[in-house]
Amino acid sequence: MTYCVGLLVDEGLVMIADTRTNAGLDDVSTYRKLHVYDRTPGRVMAIATAGNLSMTQSVLALLAEGLENPDTGARETLADVPSLFRAVNLVGRAVRKVRHEEHEALKAAGVSFSTTLLFGGQIGDGPLGLYMIYAAGNFIECGPEAPFLQIGEHKYGKPILDRAVTSRTDLPDALKIGLISMDSTIRSNLGVGLPVDILVVRRGTPEPVVNRRIEPGEPYFHDLRERWSAALRQAHMNIPRPPYL
Amino acid sequence: MTYCVGLLVDEGLVMIADTRTNAGLDDVSTYRKLHVYDRTPGRVMAIATAGNLSMTQSVLALLAEGLENPDTGARETLADVPSLFRAVNLVGRAVRKVRHEEHEALKAAGVSFSTTLLFGGQIGDGPLGLYMIYAAGNFIECGPEAPFLQIGEHKYGKPILDRAVTSRTDLPDALKIGLISMDSTIRSNLGVGLPVDILVVRRGTPEPVVNRRIEPGEPYFHDLRERWSAALRQAHMNIPRPPYL
Repeated sequence: MTYCVGLLVDEGLVMIADTRTNAGLDDVSTYRKLHVYDRTPGRVMAIATAGNLSMTQSVLALLAEGLENPDTGARETLADVPSLFRAVNLVGRAVRKVRHEEHEALKAAGVSFSTTLLFGGQIGDGPLGLYMIYAAGNFIECGPEAPFLQIGEHKYGKPILDRAVTSRTDLPDALKIGLISMDSTIRSNLGVGLPVDILVVRRGTPEPVVNRRIEPGEPYFHDLRERWSAALRQAHMNIPRPPYL
Repeated sequence: MTYCVGLLVDEGLVMIADTRTNAGLDDVSTYRKLHVYDRTPGRVMAIATAGNLSMTQSVLALLAEGLENPDTGARETLADVPSLFRAVNLVGRAVRKVRHEEHEALKAAGVSFSTTLLFGGQIGDGPLGLYMIYAAGNFIECGPEAPFLQIGEHKYGKPILDRAVTSRTDLPDALKIGLISMDSTIRSNLGVGLPVDILVVRRGTPEPVVNRRIEPGEPYFHDLRERWSAALRQAHMNIPRPPYL
């Protein structure tokens, strides 16, 4: 299981991912799912992964190696594609290539190719963007009407996003609401767990403002969890009781 | 799609079900999913249904007709079984019978037998109980550690239940929290919608205290939805901003 959320607001981009993976309830481990590409000056990108770990790892390895551009024949990586649109295209092609190579063997083993990615970032002074890439390599872009995208166990953490996030939400609040959404998921689903990785990028500045891991016991996140639980309990107590009984 | 929740607290039982059914997004209608059996004095029972409508309707029709008791050969209905445990057994047998009869044809059509039920109530001065019945006719009973059961689209509305309900929650609060859980689901999933049917039974009194439908625009539920949205927004505003940026 997995939960990753990306929020794209006027001020910038937030990406949050948990780290729990499991092959059955008795085989649980911690793997990074938020992969940040920030080594090349003037560009920052990140991929958050959900689905079968062997397939998402193959996609990432392929991206590190580079893929041939079908028009020019040149080998391309995220470090040298000229625009974010070309970057998301490259990631989609990597997903397709892995799918193409694994499809027959997976089908024979009765395993479906399940991979969904969030991809976000900014290259130079180009646009800041956030995308969801499906298992077929096709993708959608996050728009201002619903300024967030989720992959994995997305339902527990959706109500707070639906109600609290607009594109005018500022960057610290977007991060805070994203962390509340993550907490709601962790609290209700054992398959999603700490540590949590976070990335924050300010629009127009292609480098991370925040790129860190929140470990279990980290004071701010612990406090947020306590306060959110208390606030939910308080919130329902402030609603009048039903007049039906 | 469907969302039904049952809450079993010290004071009594609450059952809540939406009414939206759809066969594709372009074929949406309203069907009752909470079926209350309260015509026989001294007994109250209710079934909430999720899954394929044709199968749940067959189960209900079979229960109305009655099933043969395998030990005595007598025909039994919910109006005459002697205990709640025998009642949930009867419902489980009805599910099995429909499954047995439909299985081959459904399999040939590539349709799976998907039916999950909540069953609750009290017979005479016997125990008040709440059960979840699976597609194979087997069932589990709700216990005091997690005093609620959900069927259908259960994830959106689980965080508030996980945090706010204990077996000591009183009956009006249990109904209120159940309605908040329903609202969270309606707000985030188009497949779940008003009207909403509710049943409340006080432990020890085998008759409904509340058995009514909440229609769109009903003032209390409308107010609850507004207040809950406002409270969620307020709740996150009262949490300090992340210290990371």
